[in-house]
Amino acid sequence: MLSLKKLAVSSFNENLAYIHKDCVAYKVDDLKSLTKVEIHGGVKPVYAFLQVVEDSRLVKPDELALNSEAFKQINLPEGANISLTLSPQPPSMNSIRRKIAGNILSSGEYSAIVNDILSRRYSNMDIASFLVASGSFMTASEVLSLTEALIGDKVLHWDKENIVVDHHCLGGIPGNKTDIIITAIVAAYGLPMPKTASRSVTSCAGVADTFAVLANVDLDEKQLRKVVMENRGAIVSHNYLELAEANRLISAVERQIGITQQQHITSSVLAIKLAAGVTHLVIDIPVGPNSRIKSTNEAMRLRKLIEYVGDMLSIEIDAVITDGSEPIGNGVGAVLEARDIMKILRNKEDAPQDLREKSLFLAGRILEFDPKLRGGQGYHVAKEILTSGRALEAMNKIIYAQGKAPQPQLGSLTRDIVSNVSGVVESIDNARINKIGILAGAAQYPGAGIDLFKKVGDTVEQGEALYRIHAVNSTDFAFANSVVEGYSGYEISKRGEI
Amino acid sequence: MLSLKKLAVSSFNENLAYIHKDCVAYKVDDLKSLTKVEIHGGVKPVYAFLQVVEDSRLVKPDELALNSEAFKQINLPEGANISLTLSPQPPSMNSIRRKIAGNILSSGEYSAIVNDILSRRYSNMDIASFLVASGSFMTASEVLSLTEALIGDKVLHWDKENIVVDHHCLGGIPGNKTDIIITAIVAAYGLPMPKTASRSVTSCAGVADTFAVLANVDLDEKQLRKVVMENRGAIVSHNYLELAEANRLISAVERQIGITQQQHITSSVLAIKLAAGVTHLVIDIPVGPNSRIKSTNEAMRLRKLIEYVGDMLSIEIDAVITDGSEPIGNGVGAVLEARDIMKILRNKEDAPQDLREKSLFLAGRILEFDPKLRGGQGYHVAKEILTSGRALEAMNKIIYAQGKAPQPQLGSLTRDIVSNVSGVVESIDNARINKIGILAGAAQYPGAGIDLFKKVGDTVEQGEALYRIHAVNSTDFAFANSVVEGYSGYEISKRGEI
Repeated sequence: MLSLKKLAVSSFNENLAYIHKDCVAYKVDDLKSLTKVEIHGGVKPVYAFLQVVEDSRLVKPDELALNSEAFKQINLPEGANISLTLSPQPPSMNSIRRKIAGNILSSGEYSAIVNDILSRRYSNMDIASFLVASGSFMTASEVLSLTEALIGDKVLHWDKENIVVDHHCLGGIPGNKTDIIITAIVAAYGLPMPKTASRSVTSCAGVADTFAVLANVDLDEKQLRKVVMENRGAIVSHNYLELAEANRLISAVERQIGITQQQHITSSVLAIKLAAGVTHLVIDIPVGPNSRIKSTNEAMRLRKLIEYVGDMLSIEIDAVITDGSEPIGNGVGAVLEARDIMKILRNKEDAPQDLREKSLFLAGRILEFDPKLRGGQGYHVAKEILTSGRALEAMNKIIYAQGKAPQPQLGSLTRDIVSNVSGVVESIDNARINKIGILAGAAQYPGAGIDLFKKVGDTVEQGEALYRIHAVNSTDFAFANSVVEGYSGYEISKRGEI
Repeated sequence: MLSLKKLAVSSFNENLAYIHKDCVAYKVDDLKSLTKVEIHGGVKPVYAFLQVVEDSRLVKPDELALNSEAFKQINLPEGANISLTLSPQPPSMNSIRRKIAGNILSSGEYSAIVNDILSRRYSNMDIASFLVASGSFMTASEVLSLTEALIGDKVLHWDKENIVVDHHCLGGIPGNKTDIIITAIVAAYGLPMPKTASRSVTSCAGVADTFAVLANVDLDEKQLRKVVMENRGAIVSHNYLELAEANRLISAVERQIGITQQQHITSSVLAIKLAAGVTHLVIDIPVGPNSRIKSTNEAMRLRKLIEYVGDMLSIEIDAVITDGSEPIGNGVGAVLEARDIMKILRNKEDAPQDLREKSLFLAGRILEFDPKLRGGQGYHVAKEILTSGRALEAMNKIIYAQGKAPQPQLGSLTRDIVSNVSGVVESIDNARINKIGILAGAAQYPGAGIDLFKKVGDTVEQGEALYRIHAVNSTDFAFANSVVEGYSGYEISKRGEI
């Protein structure tokens, strides 16, 4: 028996147990490394990885300390008596081995894997194995099984609403924050849109990051319900809501190993939306040579997969393949993107027209989910709502209801990247712009990012600025500067060459 | 700038950096979880995963603490000024993505992956991804590339020795500690055999665990060299020698996720032996329905792969496919196995004959690497060395030279498993015996294990004991007892039925 202690260390998704190297109760053999144990004493066993401590000030030989996550799960006071046993591999790891060997897994197997992930019996290594093993091939019905398993127990119900809408973009395009504009238009129209959004995954800013510039996005279920009931729309972080918890654990690993497959995109997006109680969903699949989805064939396969799983789980899907060949809007990075959005909602003349048009198009598709609307009218209704100022009004109400944010400053360290030649912008490399933005600190600081002055088809004079880099701190600024020298991401054809 | 602190926590293979949630220098955003950082201030950047600390007694807001592994690598005193940046993904992760997509990787790519693993730029999640991605298919030349990369910089050289021999068994068979007997015979003959062995991976005892019952196995390079030069043989832990370090990091993850592929077995075994300076290697590939390698075809594929890689890397391989249908020897678990070995070396009448014969056969194959020996004489020479007592003499010298161990006690909690019927032992399930032994504590306590009284073909009376379980502590004893009820692992045909 050991005495329970808390070490207030957050290891994010993993439970850790700290044992003294001269533990009085167990022989700690450091050669049996990476040992997973079951800790007994609470209502249910808690699973954790052992860490061996050499310093009795941290953990004494008669203590076992748990990190914040595991301590919360065991739900016992410090000083409680606990014991531990070696944890055998969860039986569902056999399914991972079967998947590696090329088998098709049953829905029971996916459900067992997800349950073991939720009970923390899977380490992040095990989750990575699952992602890679299932990433190489999954049948459509396997994706369905995984999606169902990922939804989890917590599902939001929107009483009396027959239609609950949302929009999701599969991403990879810098700028492109249509979601916030769409939410304003749809809310003004009156369809309920509880937009659940993510923080930045691999981009300069996620939708939740950008909206966090304007309003608080960390709402709990009750707060979300209130905002949506009163304003018909909200934009909140799905992480904070703890929807599709297993998906959150899997996505954290996916982000770290940087491996994303169509099958996991599908199950992840649909599980979150189903957990959020969405009944009608528009999905934007942007295609471009430097976007996440590179060919129309790939986009079409993804569309079919999403449609199949959506149909089987009774969520109405309208998946739209769009042009993802260049950034959408001018700003890349949370503060700059929020600026573009407000310009569009305010009907400013210098608002980026590409972002405005795309938002109207997608908002129109959502409005057409309403049986009362005559087919083909969605875009026009959306445009009327925007130009009349009703979208801005709805947005302001939502911001006020969620809690207005103290707007962060735009990064003051700037550099203009100029064109070496006079000519026409032939192409803009999404991946490059994204990379420069991230190096400038955009994934960490809302004020960092890139302000694009020229888009494809624009003429440019020699020495004229193509874009401006904004950074918040000098280290990031130096990083971005060192990389931009090599390749700016812009291709310019000399005048007369086209 | 933050002040460096050490947290004396060993996380085995992973570098961890502990940052206070209210860090004065960096914004800690817990939503960007599992963040990998580069820590600057030492000669080279050190890579680590962030852990967020809420308790200023552990880490202050102006400090950054490193765990034992990372602190050793940064090689700076506590209080030194350090800074950190977000660590981009190592470029070699692109190769992992290419592998998942079904590509064949170049030798340069394998070398880059291994270098990134060695510099701790790969998390254990990344290593798991590599294992699973490459486990689904690798060409023979990819296995060659990986093996070459895994050998590493540290290679033992045995000056003036033209032949340096070793033996490796691919395992999965309970008991079966031929290695120690073989080393005694080969050393007595005079061929140098610096046997590098592993601790238990998935079995009741590794060769290093069993020999640790008799002698110290944790020798450094200098000590190993001295023992081998003076006694022509040694049996040491390759972990302690830090040979093929990248392989050690990979194997730790492999063990945890429990996924082992032929390709990784090949690269792992050959990299360690090549790093140990072995020139001639006998490999035992036991085949049986309940052993690791289940069919002769599978064994043959593995043999060919090992031979191909061995040939390309100029290590002479004699790979032997043997019968792995039942345990070899009577004892399973370190103390019991050491007892069997000493009985054989002492030519005791009750020594297990199967283990004796197999050891003589394999030792004979090694002796035939000696050009001076006439073909076909190996077995006979080995037998003469054993029966004459010269092998025992060599063993005692090696034990003395490595340092005699304080022999641990055999577990005193025992239970005899008896037969329900009279008849003949038809089969013994290796996997089941292994599992019962591990539950009895054999992987952790040398004194735990299983003592087999009956082998295949033996007659047994109703109520007669088939084997005895030995455990060291009551928890393990209860575990083993609860499992053995279901299925003992023995199949007995009733008398007259055959």
